Amino acid sequence: MARTRLTPERESELFAAVLDLLREVGYDALTMDAVAARTHSSKATLYRQWGSKPELVVTAMRHNKPVRLADIDTGSVRGDFLAVVTRTDDCRMEQDSALMRGLSRAVHDNPDLHQALRELLVEPELSGLALLLRRGVERGELNPDNPALKYVPHMLIGAFAARQLVDGRPVDQAFLLEYVDSVVLQALGV
Amino acid sequence: MARTRLTPERESELFAAVLDLLREVGYDALTMDAVAARTHSSKATLYRQWGSKPELVVTAMRHNKPVRLADIDTGSVRGDFLAVVTRTDDCRMEQDSALMRGLSRAVHDNPDLHQALRELLVEPELSGLALLLRRGVERGELNPDNPALKYVPHMLIGAFAARQLVDGRPVDQAFLLEYVDSVVLQALGV
Repeated sequence: MARTRLTPERESELFAAVLDLLREVGYDALTMDAVAARTHSSKATLYRQWGSKPELVVTAMRHNKPVRLADIDTGSVRGDFLAVVTRTDDCRMEQDSALMRGLSRAVHDNPDLHQALRELLVEPELSGLALLLRRGVERGELNPDNPALKYVPHMLIGAFAARQLVDGRPVDQAFLLEYVDSVVLQALGV
Repeated sequence: MARTRLTPERESELFAAVLDLLREVGYDALTMDAVAARTHSSKATLYRQWGSKPELVVTAMRHNKPVRLADIDTGSVRGDFLAVVTRTDDCRMEQDSALMRGLSRAVHDNPDLHQALRELLVEPELSGLALLLRRGVERGELNPDNPALKYVPHMLIGAFAARQLVDGRPVDQAFLLEYVDSVVLQALGV
């Protein structure tokens, strides 16, 4: 049988389907059979192209470009945080939350998956936030010795993780805007 | 065949094994076969006593008594938070984190599991924290109008959820003590 190459469009479609399945059933329950059925491809093609389920999942996650925070610059710390919150719509937030839930156990056992999740959802946010805070320090809005500075990512990720558990509701912009004012900016002394 | 009853000791042992398996493989991958093998019991016994996997898991979680915060009362908000952190040892924290990871996706699809996780890990903490904060307000240490008051659970749960993701390390007492001083008490204006 001749070796075929997938077109970039077909590959993108396939990676999107893998992420959808991860959100729906989680990593443990995701099977190559389900990916093949959802994408109308053969399992032989999937194994030939990606070798294994972890490789396929990691490649699909790396292919997905995250929202960039780096180009936000409103001139104030509060303005920047509000822009961060309002540029991600409620639907995308729920998609990211679903991806985190689907992977949270598996990443603990699988270093490659952990690294892919970091690259997709964690590191772009961390470097974007670091930049935002550094500008706040340079403008004199933030005290560089404030011990809360290094915990801004923890505060924000906490809002995502705790909303469903504590309040039984998904994260949305209205909640995040109030949380930024009530917790993040207060801890930062803004 | 005669219907047998399990002794309370045998039942506790079995429930502990179910929680261990949840931490190790997560809810989706937990099978009645694995529970039977781990506990040296027959699947027939498991199904006769609990009917189904969700029922067995929920009953096992309800059986596990959570750590109580309600009897902490050191006389200051900071002292109370330090007592909360230091009364849960690092090993127990990692066990609770593992349970959360193992259940985070499944609880989203299963309301009974969600309720059991709330009763086991969330509600005792929420009511304990509410009491701690109410005493701080009564002593005049906390401003009752501080908007951060209602987000203390989110800040603390966030520390657990974000530690591994952001820093690649498990939560321990040293980290939590610094987080309480740097974030929680600052946001509360203590």
